[in-house]
Amino acid sequence: MTEPMEVRNPRTGKLDYVIIPPPSRLLAQQCSRTRRAQVRWQQLGLEGRIEALQQWKQAILLGRDRLTEALVNDTGRLSISILEIDSFLSSIDRWCGLAPDLLQESARNTSIPFIALQQTSVPYPLVGVISPWNFPLLLSTIDTIPALLAGCAVIVKPSEITPRFVAPLITALNAVPKLRDVLTFVEGAGETGATLIEYVDLVCFTGSVATGRKVAEVAARRFIPAFLELGGKDAAIVLESANLELATSAILWGSVVNTGQSCLSIERIYVADAIFEQFYHQLITKASRLQLAYPTVDSGEIGPIIAEKQAAIINDHLQDAIFKGAVIHCGGKVEELGGGWWCRPTVLTQVDHSMKVMTEETFGPIMPVMSFATTEEAVYLANDSMYGLSAAVFAESETEALAVAQQIDAGAISINDAALTAIMHEGEKNAFKFSGIGGSRMGAAALKRFTRKKAFLIKTNPANDPWWFDNS
Amino acid sequence: MTEPMEVRNPRTGKLDYVIIPPPSRLLAQQCSRTRRAQVRWQQLGLEGRIEALQQWKQAILLGRDRLTEALVNDTGRLSISILEIDSFLSSIDRWCGLAPDLLQESARNTSIPFIALQQTSVPYPLVGVISPWNFPLLLSTIDTIPALLAGCAVIVKPSEITPRFVAPLITALNAVPKLRDVLTFVEGAGETGATLIEYVDLVCFTGSVATGRKVAEVAARRFIPAFLELGGKDAAIVLESANLELATSAILWGSVVNTGQSCLSIERIYVADAIFEQFYHQLITKASRLQLAYPTVDSGEIGPIIAEKQAAIINDHLQDAIFKGAVIHCGGKVEELGGGWWCRPTVLTQVDHSMKVMTEETFGPIMPVMSFATTEEAVYLANDSMYGLSAAVFAESETEALAVAQQIDAGAISINDAALTAIMHEGEKNAFKFSGIGGSRMGAAALKRFTRKKAFLIKTNPANDPWWFDNS
Repeated sequence: MTEPMEVRNPRTGKLDYVIIPPPSRLLAQQCSRTRRAQVRWQQLGLEGRIEALQQWKQAILLGRDRLTEALVNDTGRLSISILEIDSFLSSIDRWCGLAPDLLQESARNTSIPFIALQQTSVPYPLVGVISPWNFPLLLSTIDTIPALLAGCAVIVKPSEITPRFVAPLITALNAVPKLRDVLTFVEGAGETGATLIEYVDLVCFTGSVATGRKVAEVAARRFIPAFLELGGKDAAIVLESANLELATSAILWGSVVNTGQSCLSIERIYVADAIFEQFYHQLITKASRLQLAYPTVDSGEIGPIIAEKQAAIINDHLQDAIFKGAVIHCGGKVEELGGGWWCRPTVLTQVDHSMKVMTEETFGPIMPVMSFATTEEAVYLANDSMYGLSAAVFAESETEALAVAQQIDAGAISINDAALTAIMHEGEKNAFKFSGIGGSRMGAAALKRFTRKKAFLIKTNPANDPWWFDNS
Repeated sequence: MTEPMEVRNPRTGKLDYVIIPPPSRLLAQQCSRTRRAQVRWQQLGLEGRIEALQQWKQAILLGRDRLTEALVNDTGRLSISILEIDSFLSSIDRWCGLAPDLLQESARNTSIPFIALQQTSVPYPLVGVISPWNFPLLLSTIDTIPALLAGCAVIVKPSEITPRFVAPLITALNAVPKLRDVLTFVEGAGETGATLIEYVDLVCFTGSVATGRKVAEVAARRFIPAFLELGGKDAAIVLESANLELATSAILWGSVVNTGQSCLSIERIYVADAIFEQFYHQLITKASRLQLAYPTVDSGEIGPIIAEKQAAIINDHLQDAIFKGAVIHCGGKVEELGGGWWCRPTVLTQVDHSMKVMTEETFGPIMPVMSFATTEEAVYLANDSMYGLSAAVFAESETEALAVAQQIDAGAISINDAALTAIMHEGEKNAFKFSGIGGSRMGAAALKRFTRKKAFLIKTNPANDPWWFDNS
């Protein structure tokens, strides 16, 4: 575990970066040091913590070019990297704005005349964040920012596949000693993550169902809370009344943005019989216009497949579908270009739920389209999945779309657009089935996950008789 | 597991009742039947569910004498049984009053001009409740009532030690067919509870740390939420300024009510040096006045020890303390009377944290008193425990008491009284350390635990461009 690990560049395929996972003993020491520093961080108070986070933000802005460059090297893409940085920075402001209300102590009388109630929020001292490679910056900070504001110390273990963005963050962190003491990044792969869970008081994990389930079991053994955001196989349902122009554009982007490497990508498309042909023809036309971002990062819309193992999975899902009778209308293969792995937007028809492409998470720019006869059938198909992260419904009227959306077992459902949870974080949502467990990462609940509620019950009338005497 | 099990009467020691645990196959069938019925229960709407619960309440009131008799036979005590029934019935009213606000759907605009947000709460279909013997009625219904109002179906597995109270509840349930279909009680011991967890969508467990940790691991393996309310070793801290009359009375009752068979019993008492002698002399005087509720249920304040195995644990803790040098001032032994096990209120001094009576859950009317020199020492001693359920602090002023209470790692802290969480359920509180995990059983959060939040994100301006285009 102390062996250096070489990191592949998604555009060149070259091993051009090295990380050095800490030995377990060192990681344990880092955890106790960070935990000890948490006491001062909590005592600093919310105002002090907000100030420190804003200082970090300013330092990041100063080194923004280096961060962008590192993220581009991590992911092979430019526009999404810029979007990630913007979104990360604005999340700092958003949480700094929300935290004072969410952490406010309260004091009030109760329905029992002689008892007053005071409530306070106590942070879990040390939070562990284990994050994936598909949005390296966003997903390593989405839980970290509210946890820090809540008063926790945080140790982040980002994916070993995209570790380059961390160095610029640490450089910026060095300008804010108070924050540096309670925010630690560790390099490493699964083994390092597993060790980390042994030393924290709460764990946030974003990643696969298989690993997430292991995290849940270790956390249960350690008796610590686990917040898991796992895979998705989001369905889009297009009802007969839908605006086809809108639906095809939204679904195309909901499927292929970030080359489909997003848990909330649209991965299954169910279209009403009457408009099925028109829909997929339009989808193919629009999909075919998109270009690979090759040879340069600003060449086109579709970046490389970041993780080499994912390229193999996408290829496997496509081969499985073809073997079982699916028809490919555009795209359709994983190809090597200049050492990287690429896949053009791919539209498939003649698909069914015997195929991996309709049941397992593909994480690529793949759009399998299936027709349905009735809305009951559409709902049945959408719910015929082990996942329940999010979904999308398209119809002429909100009312019609909502009636269908109500029946879908998923935490967030976009109406007449796709994957809106990527930009709108105000709504609370819980994952269904194997897509996650343990509280909403969005809305006010997201910050509250990192604290315990403590109640002070104050006897306000100190007569000699305790309440028990009345009931004895 | 289909063998009938004989149940001991805590007053007579006789095996005078029989339960028949269902075979696993039958339990699985019961679970699917109850789960199927949940669909109608949810569709009934909150008003319909409130109506059904109120009908049940009326039917229980009609058979109240039988329920009281059964509870008295289960627990060997009268006044607490009456209190339990009152508290259970008023919890139905309380939750029926709170549920409409807590389950209300919301619709609003968001900070993004073209996205509106609607939020709804979706119940977990089937909730399993596994409850203990110390408050058989209260603890089997404390999670059940809010879960039912949230729209869940519930299967309750009460303790095999106190199963008699269930029959009168079922009789009352037969008057409310809609509720009967979604509220099932099953008889059995640990094995039945373990089987139940395999078939539900969420589990609430109240009981020991050892079993609770197993429940957590099974729930994690099944990937379902687990809400665990486990043991406690609640400390009371008496500062030098405290009103001694008040403190001794409150702590006495907080320790011995229900013969100490309560997770929120005061089990450790830390008193400022200056008032230590006076305190424990007063405590002894008051403790010695209390009488066993023997030979009849209305003879005195201290009922029998309900669980035979607990009698052995109390005895073991006392022997261990005596062996290590503790001095017993009153009570001090577990005795058999008429076939039941009894223990008089027991005050010990010369105790320390090497003794089980200061570190493990005793669950008896045992009051070990230890002195402290500084408040730092008091806080250190209170926190030197694997438990963190609740606590109590006594001082002349609220401010002085609160300053100490803030430093105690426990979810609820009574100020100038003991165990106020037993009567005041409005405050949210989370257990610390091994006392529990998974969300507050009190306050508004208690009901919300039984639902997932679903967010509908509605694109309100159906222009052709989905949001993605701006960022591509």
